[in-house]
Amino acid sequence: MRIIVVGGEGTIGRAVVAALSSGRHEIITAGRTSGALRVDIESADSVQQMFRQVGPFDALVSAAGNARFGSLETMTEDELVRGVHGKLLGQIRLVLLGRSYVREGGSFTLTSGYLLNDPIPGTVTFAVANGGIEGFVRASALEFGQRIRINAVSPGMAEDSAEHFGHLNPGRLPTPMRTIGAAYARGVEGFRTGEIIPAW
Amino acid sequence: MRIIVVGGEGTIGRAVVAALSSGRHEIITAGRTSGALRVDIESADSVQQMFRQVGPFDALVSAAGNARFGSLETMTEDELVRGVHGKLLGQIRLVLLGRSYVREGGSFTLTSGYLLNDPIPGTVTFAVANGGIEGFVRASALEFGQRIRINAVSPGMAEDSAEHFGHLNPGRLPTPMRTIGAAYARGVEGFRTGEIIPAW
Repeated sequence: MRIIVVGGEGTIGRAVVAALSSGRHEIITAGRTSGALRVDIESADSVQQMFRQVGPFDALVSAAGNARFGSLETMTEDELVRGVHGKLLGQIRLVLLGRSYVREGGSFTLTSGYLLNDPIPGTVTFAVANGGIEGFVRASALEFGQRIRINAVSPGMAEDSAEHFGHLNPGRLPTPMRTIGAAYARGVEGFRTGEIIPAW
Repeated sequence: MRIIVVGGEGTIGRAVVAALSSGRHEIITAGRTSGALRVDIESADSVQQMFRQVGPFDALVSAAGNARFGSLETMTEDELVRGVHGKLLGQIRLVLLGRSYVREGGSFTLTSGYLLNDPIPGTVTFAVANGGIEGFVRASALEFGQRIRINAVSPGMAEDSAEHFGHLNPGRLPTPMRTIGAAYARGVEGFRTGEIIPAW
């Protein structure tokens, strides 16, 4: 398969690439500041350009999308909107613009996250974005049918970021990177659609 | 209690008002085209003006927010963004701007819906908005603590709209308006926070 991994050199993206690197696939990484191709998912032009460069593909994994930690106490509407446009609409844009390039029977695998189910203070924007992604996946799968599968992985706190975030998540065991990678591989190589695949 | 019901003359809003009309409360309805006060939740200025007119209040119920049915096949990014700005960001705006007017111990009760859990074709925008609302409620409740409660009701297909939508929802029994009203009353008069209250 020809697989695009957006955010392929981030913490999650590296685990995805590792899980899919069996030699059976051609993997194309893309990212804002790293990867084989440059793409800013907040820009429709940039996303279009990436798809034109890549051409037809079999699977796209999105492990990208900015949202910011921030106290609700001081959060303005603008800050929230920016977060929503990054992680939520950025990922949806990959699907809306990529659907004309993905091959019949291909798939999209997006990223939600545990902060929807188990938020911690300062994560309102993540929770809003993740909730929107899960709704998008469930509802759009109905309309794509079996022509295009679409799923989202909901990763727990990644082991590779536990050093930075562990103290904010009391009682949460880090999720091994291999578990996270496997969940995305299930999205890409598996059979189901409209699924939220937990990885924690 | 002094209770604002945004969308108070819509299908859901009327059920909310009926459930809270025991004589114990002062109910102020607001809406884009009906109600005691005019408010457009897509405009920050309009929402600010409503809160200035009402002054301190004990509870706000949002039964408002536009999202449009539309096939994913032809959906553009702009259409999706407009839907997200209506039902998702419009309701969040009521909380972000209303929090400085709500009395200590007061509450917000927002509206999600069954289309997040059980979508039908053409409801991508609803599913995205509802997912975002549920994430917002869960994560913001953590930060409001007991000062301000926040919950969302997830209504099923309202009995009063079954004539129009029933044929699109095979096998879904309409939810009685009394069940829907009671769920909102639980948000307003109840004790919990961060809860998604099913009404179906």
